[in-house]
Amino acid sequence: MAKLQAGYLFPEIARRRNAHIQKNPDAKVISLGIGDTTEPIPVPITSAMEEKARSLSTSEGYSGYGAEQGEKPLRAAIAKRIYSDLNIKETEIFVSDGAKCDISRLQLLFGPDVSVAVQDPSYPAYVDTSVMVGQTGGFLTNVQQYDKIGYMKCTPDNDFFPDLKSVPRKDIIYFCSPNNPTGAAASRSQLEQLVAFAKENGSIIVYDSAYAIYMSDDSPRSIYEIPGARQVAIETGSFSKYAGFTGVRLGWTVVPDELLYSDGFPVINDFNRVMCTCFNGASNIAQAGGLACLSTEGWKAMNEVVDFYKENTRILVDTFKSLGFNTFGGTNAPYVWVQFPGRNSWDVFAEILEKAHIVTTPGSGFGPAGEGFIRASAFGNRKNILEASKRLKDLFAK
Amino acid sequence: MAKLQAGYLFPEIARRRNAHIQKNPDAKVISLGIGDTTEPIPVPITSAMEEKARSLSTSEGYSGYGAEQGEKPLRAAIAKRIYSDLNIKETEIFVSDGAKCDISRLQLLFGPDVSVAVQDPSYPAYVDTSVMVGQTGGFLTNVQQYDKIGYMKCTPDNDFFPDLKSVPRKDIIYFCSPNNPTGAAASRSQLEQLVAFAKENGSIIVYDSAYAIYMSDDSPRSIYEIPGARQVAIETGSFSKYAGFTGVRLGWTVVPDELLYSDGFPVINDFNRVMCTCFNGASNIAQAGGLACLSTEGWKAMNEVVDFYKENTRILVDTFKSLGFNTFGGTNAPYVWVQFPGRNSWDVFAEILEKAHIVTTPGSGFGPAGEGFIRASAFGNRKNILEASKRLKDLFAK
Repeated sequence: MAKLQAGYLFPEIARRRNAHIQKNPDAKVISLGIGDTTEPIPVPITSAMEEKARSLSTSEGYSGYGAEQGEKPLRAAIAKRIYSDLNIKETEIFVSDGAKCDISRLQLLFGPDVSVAVQDPSYPAYVDTSVMVGQTGGFLTNVQQYDKIGYMKCTPDNDFFPDLKSVPRKDIIYFCSPNNPTGAAASRSQLEQLVAFAKENGSIIVYDSAYAIYMSDDSPRSIYEIPGARQVAIETGSFSKYAGFTGVRLGWTVVPDELLYSDGFPVINDFNRVMCTCFNGASNIAQAGGLACLSTEGWKAMNEVVDFYKENTRILVDTFKSLGFNTFGGTNAPYVWVQFPGRNSWDVFAEILEKAHIVTTPGSGFGPAGEGFIRASAFGNRKNILEASKRLKDLFAK
Repeated sequence: MAKLQAGYLFPEIARRRNAHIQKNPDAKVISLGIGDTTEPIPVPITSAMEEKARSLSTSEGYSGYGAEQGEKPLRAAIAKRIYSDLNIKETEIFVSDGAKCDISRLQLLFGPDVSVAVQDPSYPAYVDTSVMVGQTGGFLTNVQQYDKIGYMKCTPDNDFFPDLKSVPRKDIIYFCSPNNPTGAAASRSQLEQLVAFAKENGSIIVYDSAYAIYMSDDSPRSIYEIPGARQVAIETGSFSKYAGFTGVRLGWTVVPDELLYSDGFPVINDFNRVMCTCFNGASNIAQAGGLACLSTEGWKAMNEVVDFYKENTRILVDTFKSLGFNTFGGTNAPYVWVQFPGRNSWDVFAEILEKAHIVTTPGSGFGPAGEGFIRASAFGNRKNILEASKRLKDLFAK
């Protein structure tokens, strides 16, 4: 624990945001910071949760402990709706209280003796949980990296896909696509390379697909679109950014039967054991909501909210581009990755906060290769996004 | 992972139950097995959850990520209602998706290099998570114990409280009172001994109070009733058995400011970091339900359900006593601990299942000192409890 650097990124941003508000009580602060949903959950989905809550007060509707792996109809619906044609069995799907929580349970499964690689930059939970379970050495301040973690640089120079020839072998590869924070989605041929690389090295890919629904081009939505992925990849997914469930809490993890340790033992058996020992199932009310998300009506309503956020994303991309910034992401993810060459990310963060009262996320918080970038999240109501666009233009227009 | 013995206890029981049902499709199986609530949640509590679900579909009511530590009003209400007069601050309370999940997060906090002690018998999650994070050696089949875990024998001979003079020093002491499975609640003087023992040894007590609301005598409801406990104890609690939230999922953990590692660093800071990194807050709908549980109306309604289960417990205690069995627990917990001298717990389990179609829990599943006992859970509707009582009398009457 002592190895962890000060402050998990988002609590640290919240701290700075609060300090700014205290200093500027009249400022109308807009958040493009943490990727937090802002739009109401569609009624067909909340109605299902209301109905479930109500039924728990009746003898007929009450139920206690559910299966640790999730309710059968929900597992089946995820298999059918999210993985149609990909041959994922409902028994390979483990429903959870969210992808972040599943990542820590996966780390518990892997234990301290494995080595891990992450995209650089990447969502901080991979590295922080890895440090926490003891897979790493200390923090090397000269390179801003933890010893023993493989940092796979993803920058505009390599189309945000690591040069696998230069990546040393690691047991576990965390790979998020569409990526948080860069917004880059790996193409089919890139993912084929990744799967081949994992197979060659006997590595397990943990593929984070939390933003797959935001994709606009024809990049794969799931690692299981790649032949052979069932032998090397675990995939996590989440209702957080799909249906505004960031507070409701619901996600899932897929562990295919064919994924085996080097001794031939199925990983799914161990993951099942972790779920049964360290978890007691996602909230039954949240699961009722998840099932409604996957119904025809819920799915349509949910995608309309996603489209709304996608329009927000286009507004932000246009804003930064019109100001002459090198701007990445945005097409396949609700994140815009903006380059400020030669500048320190936290300085840019501070400037935008102080002068425009807008919270962003400093790129370096996601890894050393994020230095010189900031991430703007497109979650927000339209009025705020338009106001943010205006303030950014006022601040940065030449 | 490989060290873990076959099957977490309750999934194993479920497996045997299902096999029995397949063999006896017409049998009306009654469960006194897993401690799973059966009675509806009172309307004042489900209404609050419905209301919260509904509000998430509105612009005014929607909220995304909540604080990882839980919503402020709920933390304040737990401090006030559960820890009134015990000076627990709301900032010392971390709201979670349940005590079982918190135990695995505590194990993640402690890491592989600590030594642990558990009551024998005890709730299996302490030992299983300890094995999982690598704190133990292998399973020693001759003594049915994991190497390096301290098993503190709790039997009728020592009033279910360990002889601390013979307990070797361990870093962490898991202590559940009222105990699952024995139903025994430690007295004030016993807990004073425990706190003094931890202080002497520089150990941390993890005190599981999940059944405190079932207490009928004047034993302490919280470890913090004992002077000095703030320096040595973490306490976990849960709405599962209080309000029938086994499926809704809500619990909490208290980490007092004064609890320090040997180097003087506050444990609360590290636990906060674990919660922020490995968890994303309990479901906001469940939290709305928890807040309603602690209101005057909710608290009253919730206690009426608890009283119902307490009456169930009395029926089961009377049944086993009338049959001449040495019967323990039941006064302060919804569990009845029944002795079958000289017999194997799984054999008794099988006999009761096969001949009376009743699922119990074999005592040896909770640790070697549980051998020769079975645990009967008093959660169930009254008709089933009375029918179980009748069948047990038919089976065991001389």
